[in-house]
Formats: sequence, C-alpha cells, structure tokens
Amino acid sequence: MEIVMDAQALNAFLAADFPQVAGSISVQSVAQDRLVARLRVEDQHLRPGGTVGGPTIFALADVAIYCAILSRIGPVALAVTTNASIDFMRKPAAGGELLAECRILKLGRSLAVAEALIFSDGGADPVARCSMTYSIPPKRPENSGL
Amino acid sequence: MEIVMDAQALNAFLAADFPQVAGSISVQSVAQDRLVARLRVEDQHLRPGGTVGGPTIFALADVAIYCAILSRIGPVALAVTTNASIDFMRKPAAGGELLAECRILKLGRSLAVAEALIFSDGGADPVARCSMTYSIPPKRPENSGL
Amino acid sequence: MEIVMDAQALNAFLAADFPQVAGSISVQSVAQDRLVARLRVEDQHLRPGGTVGGPTIFALADVAIYCAILSRIGPVALAVTTNASIDFMRKPAAGGELLAECRILKLGRSLAVAEALIFSDGGADPVARCSMTYSIPPKRPENSGL
Amino acid sequence: MEIVMDAQALNAFLAADFPQVAGSISVQSVAQDRLVARLRVEDQHLRPGGTVGGPTIFALADVAIYCAILSRIGPVALAVTTNASIDFMRKPAAGGELLAECRILKLGRSLAVAEALIFSDGGADPVARCSMTYSIPPKRPENSGL
Repeated sequence: MEIVMDAQALNAFLAADFPQVAGSISVQSVAQDRLVARLRVEDQHLRPGGTVGGPTIFALADVAIYCAILSRIGPVALAVTTNASIDFMRKPAAGGELLAECRILKLGRSLAVAEALIFSDGGADPVARCSMTYSIPPKRPENSGL
Repeated sequence: MEIVMDAQALNAFLAADFPQVAGSISVQSVAQDRLVARLRVEDQHLRPGGTVGGPTIFALADVAIYCAILSRIGPVALAVTTNASIDFMRKPAAGGELLAECRILKLGRSLAVAEALIFSDGGADPVARCSMTYSIPPKRPENSGL
Repeated sequence: MEIVMDAQALNAFLAADFPQVAGSISVQSVAQDRLVARLRVEDQHLRPGGTVGGPTIFALADVAIYCAILSRIGPVALAVTTNASIDFMRKPAAGGELLAECRILKLGRSLAVAEALIFSDGGADPVARCSMTYSIPPKRPENSGL
Repeated sequence: MEIVMDAQALNAFLAADFPQVAGSISVQSVAQDRLVARLRVEDQHLRPGGTVGGPTIFALADVAIYCAILSRIGPVALAVTTNASIDFMRKPAAGGELLAECRILKLGRSLAVAEALIFSDGGADPVARCSMTYSIPPKRPENSGL
C-alpha cells in the first residue's frame, strides 16, 4: 500500500491535532516496511533511577503505530486503539532517548494490526515489544464500525 | 494473603517514591478482594474531544495493580511490569475522573498477575480492561530473579 | 442484553457446527452475568506430568467466550477471534476436568470483548486468565466488517 | 547466544517428550535469528470451511517458541508459557500447511520473550502474530523460580 503521508506530514499532523505529544514524540522516517519514531525524554517521563516509565513507552508505541497507519490511509483522526499488548524486557538506558521501530502487519477496512520494538537510542537489544490493534472508522461517519 | 499496606500507607509510598504520579493517582480503598484507585484528570491527560488518552489509562492501571501487589508484600520499589495487555472498549466520559478496580489473580514468589477494570466515575460499563504481570525481585538483592 | 440461546441451544449449535470440540467442551450454564463451560479432559489434551496443555486451555476459553457472545446475538457462525491474551498462572490438577467462567465486557456492533477465568474443577485459584476480542460480521454479508 | 540444539535435536526432543504434537509439528530450520516450524494440517485441526482453528495456531506458535528457547538453553522440559498474546489477522489457506517464523527477543535467567509470525505455506501475508513469555526454571530444581 502506497505511503500517502511522509515524516514531515505526520509531524505536522501531530503538532496540529496532538500538541501535547508532539513536543516529545516525532516521526523520524517512514519507509515501505518501517516507520521510526523518537521520544525526547523529559523529566516528567522519568521514574526512580532515571529511566523512562511504562506509560511513556506505551505512549511512544501508540503514536508510532498510529502514524504508521496514517502514513497509509491519510489523516483519520478518529482511528482508535482497541487492544495493546506490551512486553517490557529491559530497563531503558538512563537519560537516553528512545526509538520505536514500527511495522504494519494488517491493514484491513476496519481493523489494523501493527507491532513496534522500542530501543534505547544506540542500544542493540529491544527495551520493549508492543503490538496494537486499531479500529478504523468507515468512510461514511453515519455508519460507525465499532 | 494478609493486607500489609492500607490506602494511607500506599498513598504515602506513592508520594515519596513516585511524586510525578501521586499528584493525579491515589488509592481510594484496599480490601481483601479489590483495590480501587482514582485518577484526577488534568489537561495533560486529555486527547482531542476532551477524553483521557490510552497512556493515561495505562498509567492508572499500572499504579493500581502495583499498589495492589504492594498491599500484600510491602513496599518493594523494584517490582517491575513485565507484560501488559489492555482492551480499550469505550470512550471515557469527557472531563470526568476515572476509577480502576483491581484484583490479584496470582501472587507467586517471583511473578504476580493482576487485572483491572477502568470505569468513568459513575459509569456502569468499563472503559478498559487491563491485565499485567509483575516480576517481584527476590528478597536477597544480590540474586536478581529477572 | 437479553439471552437468546441457553445452554441446551448452545450445545446443540456446537454439536452441529463444531463436532470436533463438542465431544470434549460443553456449556454448563448461561446466566446474565456469566457463562460456564466445561472441558472433559482426554488423553490427547495431556502434556508430560498428566496436565492439560496451553492449546487445550486456549480452546476451552475460546469456545466459552464464543458461546457467551452467541448467547446474546444468536448463532452467528462467522464471528471470529481477532485477539487473545492469556496468562497461565498455575498447573491444572492432574487428570481433572476444567471449568471456564466467562463474562462479556463489551458487545458492540462489530467488536465484542470478553474474559474468562479457567479453574480445575473444585479448585479455588484460577489456572489461567484469558481475554479475547471477537469480530462480529455485519448482518448484511455483502458489507464485510473486517 | 550459541545454538546448542539444531533442528534434528529439537525434533528428536519433541518425539521423545511431546509425542502428541511431534506427529504434526516439526522444526524445519534453526538459525541465529530465526527458527521455522511447520504444521502438517490434519482433519482434527480443521474448522468449518476447511481452515485451521485458533487453538491449532496457538499450538504451532507455542511449540515454535519453546523450541527456539531450547535451541539456546538445551532440553529444559520444565520451561512453561506464562503469557501469550495472539492477533489472528487472516484466514489460513484451506488445506494448506502453516509455517511459524520465530524470533527470540529476550533470554534472561528466569524469563524469555519471543514472537512468531504464522504464514500459510507460500503466502506472503501473516495469518497470525504471537508473542509469548516463558518462565525458565533455575538450574537447581529445589529453588523453583515461579
């Protein structure tokens, strides 16, 4: 499926529609098989020990997967996460930024499934693994799919 | 298993060790079969449309389940979430507070499993369902279990 | 939502449409808030040590949740599992039968979410916890929802 | 981590310890980054429409991930699945065999996390995605880790 929004378009969409995340999460690259998003770590994300907490990792994966879906279907602000499964596998590097590498596994008419691996910037082993299902609203809004 | 930390002790623990969440999430009650935690919704949690976003719901479930485990084993700051599975089922009520009702299903020596249902305050149908696994460190820290 | 198929109707449906499971899994009771299904354990389900393996527990949860949904919407053979999350928490009792206690959390027009706890017959602590999402086909088949 | 059991050793282990699955599931190849297992589809696996059901896909992923872990740590019969998350994304091809491509994401002292994509043999798009956590018993069995 063709890419209809590139990194610049996705970041502009985030800035307009999700200003509260756009300051810390941005799309770095969009390719046919992989979207990469980056989290700039701020004090509010840190847990004792100086590492990023689970909710922030969840937010990074969620934004990355959302953008990966939008990169194929365009700016559908109403797509919503219906299921998420995360494995937290390693402690992130203290103070470092995080990267999410995201891949779409299914892009159906009403459901999309994608997965993301989260890395500390420069780290070889994944910090976390996440898969999510998104519900995509039908084109005619009077006929809600959920 | 006996309750060794009540709501007051858990909230004091959150205030001391997790000041960034203690402002918005608090434990409301602890009973043998159920812990209830409450999220005071702030602007930073809101998504377009005025509802609470997935990462905030994740954070509420995470804190509720963490506190439910600590209520039985005492203040073990090193217990970590290893797996989380969430179903987002309904949009939370705009502007309202959220409640997490949490139940422990297994409390083993190194792994605990618990589940939480998330409700809009006053709502009858759950907004989200979450199950999590926590890894509990062994008592002698030199012998890490993970 | 009203119950439109009782245990007898669900077992007749399983016998007609899923003969390969109907021999070992049956619906025991259907109430407003809970469906109970039972697995008669056979040699083919056993793993070393005489306990039931994960795929059989998965099958029991899947049939129980499927029947819980059908008990509300009638015999829709095309409803399919889209997501399952399972925690295996305790070893089942050797040789014993298993019970699944199932509860529907959401029954939307195109997605249903339910959860099940699996017990060894007579056991107080759950062997496993499972949540599943089902995709329900729209009533007019020419307009597939998936 | 070094590979200590190859496909032949893993299949011999399955035949000896899991004869009920060894007839239908076998390890096809083991490499540093990927294990591939194959399901020979039999009538007992089929659902209405001639496709493989969820429990059988679960079993294939479970055996593949188990063997991927054993390929690194040797024949530890007591490793057990503690969590599984599956997304069922497409109907398998009727009558065809299934392949599981499995990758280990973490291999710790007491927990291992791996994921598998399931394909119809010859198909380009995955039928299902699965991630699982395994609990690995400590080397001295008198000191059970779970």
